[in-house]
Amino acid sequence: MKAQVPVDSMATLIKDVYRKTYSEELAYQWLTTLCKDIGHRLTASPQAEKAVQWGKATMDTFGLDAVYLQPVMVPHWLRGEKEEVVMKSKEMGKVSLKALALGNSVGTGPDGLTGEILEVLTIDELRAMPDEQVKDKIVFFNRPMDIGLSNTFASYGGAADQRYTGPKVAAEKGAKAAVVRSLSSRKDDNPHTGSTFYSDTTRNIPSVAISTNDADLLTKALRAGKTEIYIRTTCQMLPDVQSYNVIGEIKGSEHPDQYIIVGGHLDSWDVGEGAHDDGAGIVQSMETLYRLKKMGYQPRHTIRCVLFMNEENGLKGGKEYARMAEEKNEFHLAAIETDAGGGAAQSFSCSGGEGVVVDKKLEHLSPYITTLLGPYDIEMQPGGGGADIGPLKPNAGLLIGLRPESSRYFDYHHSGIDVLENVHPRELASGTAALVSLVMVLDQYGIGDE
Amino acid sequence: MKAQVPVDSMATLIKDVYRKTYSEELAYQWLTTLCKDIGHRLTASPQAEKAVQWGKATMDTFGLDAVYLQPVMVPHWLRGEKEEVVMKSKEMGKVSLKALALGNSVGTGPDGLTGEILEVLTIDELRAMPDEQVKDKIVFFNRPMDIGLSNTFASYGGAADQRYTGPKVAAEKGAKAAVVRSLSSRKDDNPHTGSTFYSDTTRNIPSVAISTNDADLLTKALRAGKTEIYIRTTCQMLPDVQSYNVIGEIKGSEHPDQYIIVGGHLDSWDVGEGAHDDGAGIVQSMETLYRLKKMGYQPRHTIRCVLFMNEENGLKGGKEYARMAEEKNEFHLAAIETDAGGGAAQSFSCSGGEGVVVDKKLEHLSPYITTLLGPYDIEMQPGGGGADIGPLKPNAGLLIGLRPESSRYFDYHHSGIDVLENVHPRELASGTAALVSLVMVLDQYGIGDE
Repeated sequence: MKAQVPVDSMATLIKDVYRKTYSEELAYQWLTTLCKDIGHRLTASPQAEKAVQWGKATMDTFGLDAVYLQPVMVPHWLRGEKEEVVMKSKEMGKVSLKALALGNSVGTGPDGLTGEILEVLTIDELRAMPDEQVKDKIVFFNRPMDIGLSNTFASYGGAADQRYTGPKVAAEKGAKAAVVRSLSSRKDDNPHTGSTFYSDTTRNIPSVAISTNDADLLTKALRAGKTEIYIRTTCQMLPDVQSYNVIGEIKGSEHPDQYIIVGGHLDSWDVGEGAHDDGAGIVQSMETLYRLKKMGYQPRHTIRCVLFMNEENGLKGGKEYARMAEEKNEFHLAAIETDAGGGAAQSFSCSGGEGVVVDKKLEHLSPYITTLLGPYDIEMQPGGGGADIGPLKPNAGLLIGLRPESSRYFDYHHSGIDVLENVHPRELASGTAALVSLVMVLDQYGIGDE
Repeated sequence: MKAQVPVDSMATLIKDVYRKTYSEELAYQWLTTLCKDIGHRLTASPQAEKAVQWGKATMDTFGLDAVYLQPVMVPHWLRGEKEEVVMKSKEMGKVSLKALALGNSVGTGPDGLTGEILEVLTIDELRAMPDEQVKDKIVFFNRPMDIGLSNTFASYGGAADQRYTGPKVAAEKGAKAAVVRSLSSRKDDNPHTGSTFYSDTTRNIPSVAISTNDADLLTKALRAGKTEIYIRTTCQMLPDVQSYNVIGEIKGSEHPDQYIIVGGHLDSWDVGEGAHDDGAGIVQSMETLYRLKKMGYQPRHTIRCVLFMNEENGLKGGKEYARMAEEKNEFHLAAIETDAGGGAAQSFSCSGGEGVVVDKKLEHLSPYITTLLGPYDIEMQPGGGGADIGPLKPNAGLLIGLRPESSRYFDYHHSGIDVLENVHPRELASGTAALVSLVMVLDQYGIGDE
């Protein structure tokens, strides 16, 4: 067995990684191409396919040991024509609301539909209502994200059930449609889309998100009296199509059959440019392999960059990657996901694979992290990994998520303003440098008791 | 002696501080007034005086025990007419460069001056040159900030000597004028101003900063051949005038003669809006006292908010505050400065007053910081406090600086784009909440061995 890189040499390597990553701002250059030349990348869209080809072609220039496409069948949802959502109240007249259909939502059809608004703040409140009170209404889920929390992901998590499962419960109670207050950390005019989940057994209903400002307007109208809404959406779910995960690989010298992967998702919503979500994660993951190769780093384990397809409305890429890993018996020493925006890197959150005691792993890893990443204000703590790497759990040591500073993330998330201009090149680079460093630390010092 | 607030009760108080600070975004509302209604606030300008009155009037509404002005004589520097800086080279012809005179700089007079450019990368390089090589030249200090460093304040610190002392050394060697590459972390068209220091014994020379893009253009011209520059500035230094520090105060119940202060500086450069530098620090300091008062917190020590005048081009406010503290024998248990931008709060850096062993103080404080501020990702480490609180050193326990995430700070610093739009309300609020929390921790648990 080869000697490990000593910790002080590793410190020198990491310093150089930070220097080059900050100086060259490569990820930002790639992100510019992804956002401006390709644009938003809804699963199964022409842009998503263009992004697949671009990801492969770009990684082909790195001189890796392999770059390939992993086929995966993905859902083909179409938003259709621009949504029309019009509020009608006696007091305020007719007002057009800024809206986006929720991902996977069915359409109203070309004629649209009209119904009286029934406001609820929680799904439990809706469940407790008699069905006849809900029947033929349009349920308005109006609980804001609690921005008083210090963690914006917790604010999001605390409100997201309204979008994920609100429409399904409304449908079960006989509602005609669902309107969701956008999951946004700001009061503004940008509607934020995102997936909603239907049950297989209930009839689906059209569901849209409206901007937080318009949610407040609707609230005001409701306080004044009975309010109706007209909704017209022409969304459709077409048959699944084939798409791809894109994988780049540097073979390990000692444990070629053990993997450390770093990845994000190539698809995005079909508004804005998917710059933070998750263009940032894509270009950081790509640059991670670029840096390792460029610096001549010879890994002990096989290192992969995985550009997952279809995180947003199906997770088919993540599931297929895990299925193939299982089939080929590929043990993933660590899977690292970067899908929390391109803000300044702050920490890694870490959970264990099936049967792995994460505290024990952290006991082994923490001294290395403190010594080697502490100088860059990066720490590691227990916590979730990420959606795309989740399915690897039965076959993985550690599942790790990059956690950037996220004060601004939910201003942009899933909305028309998730564009390149809202990503800062240096903040983006701080994430890349942290990822490269972590991959080397995991590769050299392992996760204990292997 | 009253019982301290137990640590678990303090945790509850701090949670509430974060909740209210994030939810209400008061500091940002005040910053909007400061930036948009008052604007930039060069020392001795009408806007600076308006800011003094506004600061006092706003704090008067808090119900504090005292709000008052502390008179201080300040320099009265005027930029004069818009700078003209024109590069002339055989190969590239005449090109206007985007420039700002350095603060405190003398003017060229209405006719301007022309000279041949002599490029240097370090002051030592300039010092080593024979005087005749420098005589009548315009010295161009062209060393970029090293953005490969992971700490942008270190990048800035590593290049700032060119602006601070470059023109003085150039004058001593017989140069006609000095041109400094802007201290900016980006390549763009925004010139960044800032103070330069003249010697009392040498003739002063006009000095300007040019944008980083124009510094690159000038470099290109120099590589192609002899290059001249025409500079016209009409800056003037007028006699000192009276201005004020603004002080708000809550009297301590147990140690009214011991002080904990939190402050920033009210003056700014005369470009942009001084939003990050240091409008952010001003409104955070003000909200700190607002929050303490509003929550009914009865401090053991006297708590002050100090809005210092003239940090940028004289530090007269900081010096006068310290002089008066000395005169009145006011021991400052801790002085906290927030003057590093309105980014997301990351840590506090802490140094000791005269004869104070900071490591010993941190040994006492760290467990409280870890337990109470750790949940908000705030730590405390040894390091500098700040310019305005520096003069308090002989009379202080701890000198502490708020350290926000600063990837973007030197994009804006001292330039026309240091405007409200580049401050994020939630990032700003994170600093306020950290400051309020730290003040309570210091007030309740002290700094050890008092």
